[in-house]
Amino acid sequence: MIDQLLMEPFGADIDLAEAVLKDYNAHLVRKASSMKGHYADADALEKLIQQGDPLHYEVFEKAVPQETGHLQFGLSKLQPGTVGEEFFMTKGHYHEIPEAAEVYLCLRGKGYMLMKTTEGECRAEYMERGRVVYVPPYWAHRSVNVGDEPLITFYVYPGDAGHNYGDIEEEGFPKRIYKRGDKVEIL
Amino acid sequence: MIDQLLMEPFGADIDLAEAVLKDYNAHLVRKASSMKGHYADADALEKLIQQGDPLHYEVFEKAVPQETGHLQFGLSKLQPGTVGEEFFMTKGHYHEIPEAAEVYLCLRGKGYMLMKTTEGECRAEYMERGRVVYVPPYWAHRSVNVGDEPLITFYVYPGDAGHNYGDIEEEGFPKRIYKRGDKVEIL
Repeated sequence: MIDQLLMEPFGADIDLAEAVLKDYNAHLVRKASSMKGHYADADALEKLIQQGDPLHYEVFEKAVPQETGHLQFGLSKLQPGTVGEEFFMTKGHYHEIPEAAEVYLCLRGKGYMLMKTTEGECRAEYMERGRVVYVPPYWAHRSVNVGDEPLITFYVYPGDAGHNYGDIEEEGFPKRIYKRGDKVEIL
Repeated sequence: MIDQLLMEPFGADIDLAEAVLKDYNAHLVRKASSMKGHYADADALEKLIQQGDPLHYEVFEKAVPQETGHLQFGLSKLQPGTVGEEFFMTKGHYHEIPEAAEVYLCLRGKGYMLMKTTEGECRAEYMERGRVVYVPPYWAHRSVNVGDEPLITFYVYPGDAGHNYGDIEEEGFPKRIYKRGDKVEIL
């Protein structure tokens, strides 16, 4: 009886060399124009949008039910680049269920997971190929690409976690990550 | 105020070439003698135990709280070999919270994720480097190594999921995976 309600197991293939999730069925695309309000230099962002509105990042998923007990996994691919001196980054989010953690495994590139609490605590955890970052319950998180190739991460979060982007759009993060010559500065 | 209750973010490194989780703080080791009752050929297992009780599998974790919202991740390393004609495998488990799913990403080796329901449905999903297997809510699961090197998987499951090994010890799985010459047979 219960079997009729059960989901079938399934597999999905990641090309670990190319860092591509094959056979995805959900695809989120954000261009520069999706990122208004997020960078320190709004004029530089506007200029980038006028110059062709380049791809910022993509997320590829095999979607599972957004229900308790399920785990959503996917690949995030964040392009290299800067807006003014600030490295390309994702919007960042809390989870709608704020106690939902997230696990990231970096497959390619170099970057940081920037994390913050509602009380203003902020942490930056370095990511490179093979590094796992644990985003504990209640921490908002955004990826920042400080390298010169795409930053690609495999991630897993609870299926019912949801995404809360709105608070980040209002609050921002206490720190930003800048390219200053050959240096990476977290300020 | 809430910050005092929050867990600090952290990172962990996986050597993706060697498939080793560095700096683990939890380590589960199972030898052949831990596997009594699981293989079809009990005499062959007993012989193996007498011949030195070889390592069967290990699990390496950076432990997080076993609480709702957290996600436990780690590496599983299952040795190659057979007990009689049956390929080495893990004990397998349901989760104590049976609706807790699990995500596996195979980093090395070749094998199957064998999954079953309480109603006797059984599925085998192939694993090789780069393949993700989704174990949906309510499916018991065990790994089987059908290759000639360790089968290594990165996994994530809900922190409060727990492990129920007892039901598997009583029920077993409806299918077993055998080495027949150069062939793999799922029977």
